[in-house]
Amino acid sequence: MSDLRRSVVLVSGGLDSATTLALAREAGFVCHALSVDYGQRHAVELEAAARVAAALGAVEHRVLSIDLRALGGSALTDTRIEVPTTPTAGIPVTYVPARNTLLLALALGWAEVLGARDIHLGVNAVDYSGYPDCRPAFIEAFERLANVATRAGVEGEGFRIHAPLLPLGKGAIIREALRLGVDLAATVSCYAADSEGRACGRCESCRLRRAGFDAAGVADPTRYV
Amino acid sequence: MSDLRRSVVLVSGGLDSATTLALAREAGFVCHALSVDYGQRHAVELEAAARVAAALGAVEHRVLSIDLRALGGSALTDTRIEVPTTPTAGIPVTYVPARNTLLLALALGWAEVLGARDIHLGVNAVDYSGYPDCRPAFIEAFERLANVATRAGVEGEGFRIHAPLLPLGKGAIIREALRLGVDLAATVSCYAADSEGRACGRCESCRLRRAGFDAAGVADPTRYV
Repeated sequence: MSDLRRSVVLVSGGLDSATTLALAREAGFVCHALSVDYGQRHAVELEAAARVAAALGAVEHRVLSIDLRALGGSALTDTRIEVPTTPTAGIPVTYVPARNTLLLALALGWAEVLGARDIHLGVNAVDYSGYPDCRPAFIEAFERLANVATRAGVEGEGFRIHAPLLPLGKGAIIREALRLGVDLAATVSCYAADSEGRACGRCESCRLRRAGFDAAGVADPTRYV
Repeated sequence: MSDLRRSVVLVSGGLDSATTLALAREAGFVCHALSVDYGQRHAVELEAAARVAAALGAVEHRVLSIDLRALGGSALTDTRIEVPTTPTAGIPVTYVPARNTLLLALALGWAEVLGARDIHLGVNAVDYSGYPDCRPAFIEAFERLANVATRAGVEGEGFRIHAPLLPLGKGAIIREALRLGVDLAATVSCYAADSEGRACGRCESCRLRRAGFDAAGVADPTRYV
């Protein structure tokens, strides 16, 4: 790998993407962190994203804004839909239509401008139980798309979409994070965190995260309300 | 086809997307027009898009804003890169990295919220001589992606991406537009139109459009500066 192999890393401020960034750095990538403010309820995540990007050695961090509230359809962007606090069957209402397609499209555009051929994102086995756009088939289909969609894909070396957490559950991700020295107390996973980044402890994301610390056998450093 | 088959139609304000909207209406679709303000130089296009959507019977028109100028890399979003007035070999500098991937991702998200399973866009043979994300292989790859990326694709009927102009040159598109009664004087194709929507007559888009009227054997109704 060249000394200057660049990657665009999607960083949300949660523990999955923080761990992904740390893995990309460990693999030797020069990392450009990208966050997207899509009108999500948990805007405090974006502040966490900036801290995470700086702490884990990204060379820069950019935030793109697009207001998906104009389209509605998800508890994360539509305040009329309540964030559930009990497990639900099937795809949850916190699913944001085509969200990861959009995030990867933006990452792809920036990667092409930077001359990067790699993109990292933190989707994993916990997510893809519920969200279609976190499954291996989605990642593979996006990689194929990237290589016909872009000047770089058509004229040069192809793109690679890296999802290094794909086979991992939350406990395994947390163990990876601790091995890599990620400060998990600085990450925010909660769908309904307060303005100081304190987690609700009740939403699906909080429950999965707490269970992950239990599975990893380590103390949960999360600040709860 | 059900009486209420809905489609999200990407409408830029140019003649290609106007003709595509007219074709979608002719095919019986209830059309939801979507425009994206991505910081393009030709913002006057968005006003044309609103007129086109209303005139051609879209049931609604929404504009989403995302500032791709933050990423740079194209003459259409970076004012430091000049819009060329002479033909260039290969992919032109007016190429916006991953633009159609992004536009289709947004259309896909809205389609899923609406319960629509169809998306129309106006890419065509003139475009794909230069832009990779206007080629048939791109449209096919996006359709495959849509069907693994979404709740609707995974759980229900699949999505179809319609690009009815794909095999057509500019002259043939203009003849279709005239057959369908599209008011081409209301459309804006120029990359550098002035604030009243008057075309420069010199950029690549203007040259292709003018050549199209010649090929169609009809008078060019475009207002030039």
